[in-house]
Amino acid sequence: MGGVGVRTVPELRRRGFGRGVVSGACHDGSMNGVEEATSERSKAYGSDFLQLDVGEAPAGGMADWLARRLREAIADGRLPVGGRLPPTRVLAAELRVSRGVVTEAYRRLTEDGHVEGRRRGGTVVVAAPVGAGAVAEPGAARPTVFFPAAPGPDAFDALRAAPARIDLTPGLPDLAAFPRAAWLRAERAVLAEMSATDLGYGDAHGAPALRRAVSGWLARNRGIRADPDDVVIVAGTAQALTLLHPVLRADGMEAVALEDPGSLGMRQHLENGGLDILPVPVDADGIRVDALRATGARAVLLTPAHQFPTGAVLSGERRRELLRWAEDGGLVLEDDYDAEHRYDRPPVPALRAMLAERVCYMGSVSKLLAPALRVGWVVPPPGYRDALVNAKRFTDLGNAVLPQLVLARLMESGEMERHLRLLRGRHRRRRDAMITAIAEHLPGAVVHGAAAGLHLTVTFDEAGGPVAYGPRPDDGHAPSGGRGAGGRGAGGRGTGGGRGAGWEVPAGVTDTELAAAALSCGVKAQPLSWHRLRPGPPGLVLGYAASHPDAVTEGVRLLGQALRGM
Amino acid sequence: MGGVGVRTVPELRRRGFGRGVVSGACHDGSMNGVEEATSERSKAYGSDFLQLDVGEAPAGGMADWLARRLREAIADGRLPVGGRLPPTRVLAAELRVSRGVVTEAYRRLTEDGHVEGRRRGGTVVVAAPVGAGAVAEPGAARPTVFFPAAPGPDAFDALRAAPARIDLTPGLPDLAAFPRAAWLRAERAVLAEMSATDLGYGDAHGAPALRRAVSGWLARNRGIRADPDDVVIVAGTAQALTLLHPVLRADGMEAVALEDPGSLGMRQHLENGGLDILPVPVDADGIRVDALRATGARAVLLTPAHQFPTGAVLSGERRRELLRWAEDGGLVLEDDYDAEHRYDRPPVPALRAMLAERVCYMGSVSKLLAPALRVGWVVPPPGYRDALVNAKRFTDLGNAVLPQLVLARLMESGEMERHLRLLRGRHRRRRDAMITAIAEHLPGAVVHGAAAGLHLTVTFDEAGGPVAYGPRPDDGHAPSGGRGAGGRGAGGRGTGGGRGAGWEVPAGVTDTELAAAALSCGVKAQPLSWHRLRPGPPGLVLGYAASHPDAVTEGVRLLGQALRGM
Repeated sequence: MGGVGVRTVPELRRRGFGRGVVSGACHDGSMNGVEEATSERSKAYGSDFLQLDVGEAPAGGMADWLARRLREAIADGRLPVGGRLPPTRVLAAELRVSRGVVTEAYRRLTEDGHVEGRRRGGTVVVAAPVGAGAVAEPGAARPTVFFPAAPGPDAFDALRAAPARIDLTPGLPDLAAFPRAAWLRAERAVLAEMSATDLGYGDAHGAPALRRAVSGWLARNRGIRADPDDVVIVAGTAQALTLLHPVLRADGMEAVALEDPGSLGMRQHLENGGLDILPVPVDADGIRVDALRATGARAVLLTPAHQFPTGAVLSGERRRELLRWAEDGGLVLEDDYDAEHRYDRPPVPALRAMLAERVCYMGSVSKLLAPALRVGWVVPPPGYRDALVNAKRFTDLGNAVLPQLVLARLMESGEMERHLRLLRGRHRRRRDAMITAIAEHLPGAVVHGAAAGLHLTVTFDEAGGPVAYGPRPDDGHAPSGGRGAGGRGAGGRGTGGGRGAGWEVPAGVTDTELAAAALSCGVKAQPLSWHRLRPGPPGLVLGYAASHPDAVTEGVRLLGQALRGM
Repeated sequence: MGGVGVRTVPELRRRGFGRGVVSGACHDGSMNGVEEATSERSKAYGSDFLQLDVGEAPAGGMADWLARRLREAIADGRLPVGGRLPPTRVLAAELRVSRGVVTEAYRRLTEDGHVEGRRRGGTVVVAAPVGAGAVAEPGAARPTVFFPAAPGPDAFDALRAAPARIDLTPGLPDLAAFPRAAWLRAERAVLAEMSATDLGYGDAHGAPALRRAVSGWLARNRGIRADPDDVVIVAGTAQALTLLHPVLRADGMEAVALEDPGSLGMRQHLENGGLDILPVPVDADGIRVDALRATGARAVLLTPAHQFPTGAVLSGERRRELLRWAEDGGLVLEDDYDAEHRYDRPPVPALRAMLAERVCYMGSVSKLLAPALRVGWVVPPPGYRDALVNAKRFTDLGNAVLPQLVLARLMESGEMERHLRLLRGRHRRRRDAMITAIAEHLPGAVVHGAAAGLHLTVTFDEAGGPVAYGPRPDDGHAPSGGRGAGGRGAGGRGTGGGRGAGWEVPAGVTDTELAAAALSCGVKAQPLSWHRLRPGPPGLVLGYAASHPDAVTEGVRLLGQALRGM
């Protein structure tokens, strides 16, 4: 079944992605899929499948070697997307190695997203890395097409469609861990129990069962006391914002203050809704409430638990300041996008828990289970609830009922909490792998916001420029270097804003150029400048949660290589 | 699991539904659940469950009797919503009747929506009819609260929540026939085969697999040739309209012409989108294109295959006229809401099949499978596609992926066509039952649009007023009486606009009052005036597809009774 997100190579070409991406700035010939694959082809192997010659494998590195050979075959198109790998038993017999070697190699390819195990369907290639089956052509588009300085609304879709060996864009949890069996079990139970009436037009407010379940989830996990009637079920946070636009405008709000840096996607949504954006600087303690007051804004959209993209946690003092601002008539739109994921810091309760009257809370399952589910929730201030339900009714008459009931069951049964615990362990290992790799391969980069969430942000010295991400001297604050919440100099180097400690980005090089160079080497990441309104030092936003630790390490190594080649 | 749509009695009371509804205008004491239940209680029965006494059952009418007793117990609250019926085997043994008698009684209760078979969960009460466990109180709200003359956006939700023995509101297919097992099988296959990437952010345009499947479906069933790239997946037709608002406005359209009578829901959606409505009269050949031209509208929303609510089919001449209007720059928004359901007339191809450049086609699974799925599709004119996808992206980033892949599988495997054939047979029997019952219980009512769809419309003589629904004399047309597409005088009476043939609605009685009186007798139906902009004769829109033939017959009998009591 052709799913979403995996695009065929012809589709990608139509979308403007050229065939010459591997001819870019990556200076490590050995990682260039095309060159390597070409040399592969000139050799003659003894066995059948991909002409693998087990004799060339190093002692003790058999699984490594096999995984590498398979990656190459996927890269050069010998194993196309949709192609099937031989059963582990068969291949092990053919290569005369233990079955564990093949299983381990398949596992690695699964973890880095190239292949996917499909019970009866075997192991299938699902994503081709850069340059699959392609040869560089003169004039072909460069990866820079994916990184415009002023990205449009389809920038995320286009970047998602760009092929890459390793995807370090932020925003996804470990999707390979999605509880497919539990989901199916719950769906079977729901289908057996639901009435025919449940299949009719549902409640625009949300299925009562899910509103009850979310109410319990928020009480247990986010410290929010909300009646099920206070919860509105929506199709994710993007829709929550869309529904809020007319509600805000009806309340006389024509502008919304936004963290800077802050999420590009959110900014685009607000702008699309005809709202003006008032940028407010962020420092290591989160949004600057004094600056927020100065804008005169009546509403602010923010990410207090784990600021996107810097990862700062809104400090106690700032929380109190912000709540005073809200009590004076301000409205807080709390985007609690990844607050459930934390590693080495205590939990931070939601702002909604403290000031129900002036905080509109938004959450979703996108980072808990999968974005593909399109389910989220809003806990609006009481006065906005009916208008929000009405907006939801007009938008789509309410979320689909069946997945709501399935999700309610997973939440009520404790399955969701179990899944979250599993994810936490997996994500933490991936996060640790990234930090270690940054210390080794990106010396001088400063890491921000790694104590929680699904991503971290690195900033680089500009030659002769300010040291690192953070408030600039003209903001009246000393440079904070790596002091942001959970921020730390990578591996002890560069800590404390070590100006010039190690390695610099050449003057005039933008982070969109950095991201394009990285893509040339087969690694996808987002430039920090996408998420900025005011200028600042170059940086990258790196997601670690969706990739295996080995892929994270390799991705950061390739990043280092790409940046050294700038 | 508490699902959507089944509300508890306390919830309904909060929503303003009084306890005294059975104290209304229904003049048949024997159908008044409360009175009957009270007399029940005073008797003493010999057996355990509900104290059933099989001795009182008439010979040969055992299943009838048992079904009636169970309905009464549900009505008076002895069997509450959520309560479980005994296993058929157990009850049969207790009553010393054959198991077939109990099975048949349960089947009837299932068909009229009171109970629901839940595999391992047994047979459970899912909906309480009017007056469940309640006693009339002075001053309690009357059913008129559900039928305001100018219904607001929550009118449909409120009416849906109103308890009634029999629900004849239009818009639902036979939901008891929903292919639960096939859905679960397809979902299992999709979960086994989908990649982790499929669980990420999807394609706002729609999952490629579903766009391919819909493209094939439309070619096979609606004569539309559309590339999968021309199909945009949305959350039902309501959302399709919401997405079109900004697209239309960006194209300079501030007003949309609408059939009159036409769907109230659609009109509310357009108005909510800030668009002006230009009503255009409908006659037995569908929308009056001369009147459409006269409005100066640049866009029209219409239901050409089975006009809602009159059921008229747009005639060949009118289609040609309309397409000429479109070629002159008009835009047709084609709402193909129930075109797949037809009984005794040939299929009518979609307008989109004839003029792709100026027709925006909209369809959904709401009438094919279930509204709860919230999946539909738009095939826009090529020039609108990108704007529509962009609107969809901003609204919710695209439909949920999993149900899209499941649906694609059902469409590609032929399961959907099988289901449609099954539905057609079931719906036709229900339609026939309604027409027969109208002939018997509503003599003088004129039936419109019964040759296709899920509902029909009846109109009544007003004492001294015009004869029946249709163009009024001052429109320059002779009264068409029952001549509308598929329209016919009920049972041969009232055909040809038989003024005064049988029975009249008292002068000054509105159809909202008729609908309220019907609800007093335990039958839910929509007043025709809800769907009108200009005044016209009173009528009711009656859905037959979602109720068992026996319930349809009983519902129409109760309607007749209610109307005679006016």
